[in-house]
Amino acid sequence: MKKLINDPQNVVPETLAGFEAVYADYVKVYYDEDDNPYVVRADAPVAGKVALVSGGGSGHEPLHAGYVGMGMLDAAVPGAVFTSPSPGPILEATKAVNAGAGVLHIVKNYTGDVQNFEIAAEDAADEGIEVKAIVVDDDVAVQDSLWTTGRRGVAGTVLLEKIVGAAAQAGKNLDECLALAEKVNGQVRSMGVALTACTVPHAGKPSFDLPDDEIEVGIGIHGEPGRRREKYTSADAITDELIKPVLDDLKAPAGSQVLLFVNGMGGTPESELYIVYKHAREVVESYGLSVARSLVGNYITSLEMQGCSVTVLLLDDELTGYWDAPVDTPAMKK
Amino acid sequence: MKKLINDPQNVVPETLAGFEAVYADYVKVYYDEDDNPYVVRADAPVAGKVALVSGGGSGHEPLHAGYVGMGMLDAAVPGAVFTSPSPGPILEATKAVNAGAGVLHIVKNYTGDVQNFEIAAEDAADEGIEVKAIVVDDDVAVQDSLWTTGRRGVAGTVLLEKIVGAAAQAGKNLDECLALAEKVNGQVRSMGVALTACTVPHAGKPSFDLPDDEIEVGIGIHGEPGRRREKYTSADAITDELIKPVLDDLKAPAGSQVLLFVNGMGGTPESELYIVYKHAREVVESYGLSVARSLVGNYITSLEMQGCSVTVLLLDDELTGYWDAPVDTPAMKK
Repeated sequence: MKKLINDPQNVVPETLAGFEAVYADYVKVYYDEDDNPYVVRADAPVAGKVALVSGGGSGHEPLHAGYVGMGMLDAAVPGAVFTSPSPGPILEATKAVNAGAGVLHIVKNYTGDVQNFEIAAEDAADEGIEVKAIVVDDDVAVQDSLWTTGRRGVAGTVLLEKIVGAAAQAGKNLDECLALAEKVNGQVRSMGVALTACTVPHAGKPSFDLPDDEIEVGIGIHGEPGRRREKYTSADAITDELIKPVLDDLKAPAGSQVLLFVNGMGGTPESELYIVYKHAREVVESYGLSVARSLVGNYITSLEMQGCSVTVLLLDDELTGYWDAPVDTPAMKK
Repeated sequence: MKKLINDPQNVVPETLAGFEAVYADYVKVYYDEDDNPYVVRADAPVAGKVALVSGGGSGHEPLHAGYVGMGMLDAAVPGAVFTSPSPGPILEATKAVNAGAGVLHIVKNYTGDVQNFEIAAEDAADEGIEVKAIVVDDDVAVQDSLWTTGRRGVAGTVLLEKIVGAAAQAGKNLDECLALAEKVNGQVRSMGVALTACTVPHAGKPSFDLPDDEIEVGIGIHGEPGRRREKYTSADAITDELIKPVLDDLKAPAGSQVLLFVNGMGGTPESELYIVYKHAREVVESYGLSVARSLVGNYITSLEMQGCSVTVLLLDDELTGYWDAPVDTPAMKK
C-alpha cells in the first residue's frame, strides 16, 4: 500500500488539521471527550437559522466537511474511513450549531449512520433541541445491500445538501426544510460503476478484487457489491448501464427539466467524467427530458477508486431556485 | 486498460463536447480547418483588455480549459493527450480573443509548446496582433529533462494564470502583464512525486513501471523521470523531499509571506493532499515564513496518476491582491 499518509490510525485527524488550516475562514474542527472530531461552520450558530448537520464515514471527501459554510451545511461529522461516526460527536455538533430554530440531520441510508444519528437526535431532544432527520436513499442499483436495509444513500446527498442548505439560509423553518428534503430525495436517483477497487488505510489492501478486464456495475460508495460484474466495454456502453436504470426508476414526465450530475469516485481523470456526461446527456434528451443544470467532478468519492456515478434530479422552479442560490463552502461556490 | 473512454483518438473532442455543454455560459469550443480544438471565453474578445492564451497537451485537466473565464484566461488550446498543440489553433485562439490591447501567451517550458507558441506568435504578428510570451519554468526537480531544455513548467502555471489574469481584468497593459508574469515566475517553485504511473489512452499501457514499494521523486507532469526513485516511506518523509528543495531554491527572506499550494496528480484522494499540506506548512513555518494563502486540490493533473506536487509562491501586496481578486471560471471561483 502506497499512500500519502503516516500512521493509518491518524488519517482523519491529520486530514482535518490540514483542512482546517486551509479553510480557517470557513470552519472550526473540534473533538469530543472521546477524541471524535466534528467540523462546525466558523460563524455557528447562525442566529434564527435552521441548522443542517450531516456526516458519515470518512474517505468520501470533499463530502461532508467540504460543504460546511454559507448556504449549505452548518456541521459535518466525519467517522473513521468508511465507518459511521458515533452518536457522541453528532450530538456535540448538533448542540454547537443549534440556534433555537431546530436542527435537520441529513443521513445517508447506511445502518450504522441511521442508528447513530437517531441516538444523537434523542439525546439532543433530551437537552431541549428539536431535531428532525432526512434519510437519503437515492441509489437505484440494489434494494438491500451489505450495510443497508433499503436503498443506499449516495451522490444525491450532495444535491440535497445544497438545495436544503439554500432554503435554510433563506429562513425556511424546520418543517419546511424537512419537507423540501423529502421532496428532493423523492425526485433524485443515482447509480455508480467501479473500474478499480480502493484501499482503506487501516485495512492495507484493496476492498475487493476486480480483474483487469472487468467492472462492477451498481457499486456502492464503500465498494459494496453492485448489480453485476461484467466485462469492460466502453464509456458509452457503461454510461448506458447507469443512466437508463436511473431514468427508468425516476419516471420523470417527458418535457421535464432535470439536473444531470456525473460524479467521480476519486481516481478518475476529469476528462473521463466529461465523456460520460456527454453521452448521459444524450440519453437524458432521448427520454424527452431537458438538462437545465449540470454538475461534473469529484463531489462524493471512494478514496482513489476509479469509476463514477450518474445522478438525475427532477427539477421545478423551487428546486432550481435553491440550486442557483449563492453558496460559499470549501468545495462548492456559486 | 480500463478507462471511461470510447475511441482513444476521440478522447479530447469528446471531453471538450461534455465540458462545453456543462459550461456553455463560460466557454465556446471551436475547431480550426485541420480539426484542432481551441477553447475561448464565451464573451471574447473583451473590449480593451489584454487577452491571455495558454495551452499544452491534454491530460492535465482542469488545466487549461477549466481556467477560461472572467479574471483568468481568455483562451486555452488543448493538444492531444500529453502532446503540444500545433501552431494553427494557437493562432486561431489568439485572433479570437484579441481586442486590440495585445495578447499574452502563457507557455509551460516544454520544447514543443515553446516552439509552437513562438510560431503562432510570429504568424499573429504578421496579422498585426501584438503578442508577448511568458515561459513558465518553476520545477526545481531537474535542470533539463526528456522534453525540456531548462526547468519544466508545472503547477506554478496555475498561480501565474490567476494572478496575471486578475491584472489583465483590472486593465493593466501588455507590458505590465508581461512584467507581472515574469515576477510571478521568478518567485514560484514546485516539485512533485509519483506513487503510480498513468496510462495515456492512445498508448494503452502505463507510461513507466513503478514497483509497488517505490516512488519517483521529482516527477514531471507527463511522467518524465525525476531526481531519483526510492522506497516508499511516509507522507511526512515524502513531503520533506518536496518542500525542502522548493524552499532551498526559492530562498525567500525570513518573515516573508507565501502561498502554499498542494496539487493532486489526479488519482490521489483529497484527504492525502491535506495530510501533505499539514506537514508542508509546518516545514514552511520552520523556515521562518508565514503561509498567508493556500490552495489544495487537483488543479494540474497527470490523468489518473497518484501523487502530488508542492508549490510555494513568495507573496507581496501586489501578488496577494491579484490572488484575492474575483475570478469566475469552471475550475476556479472566488
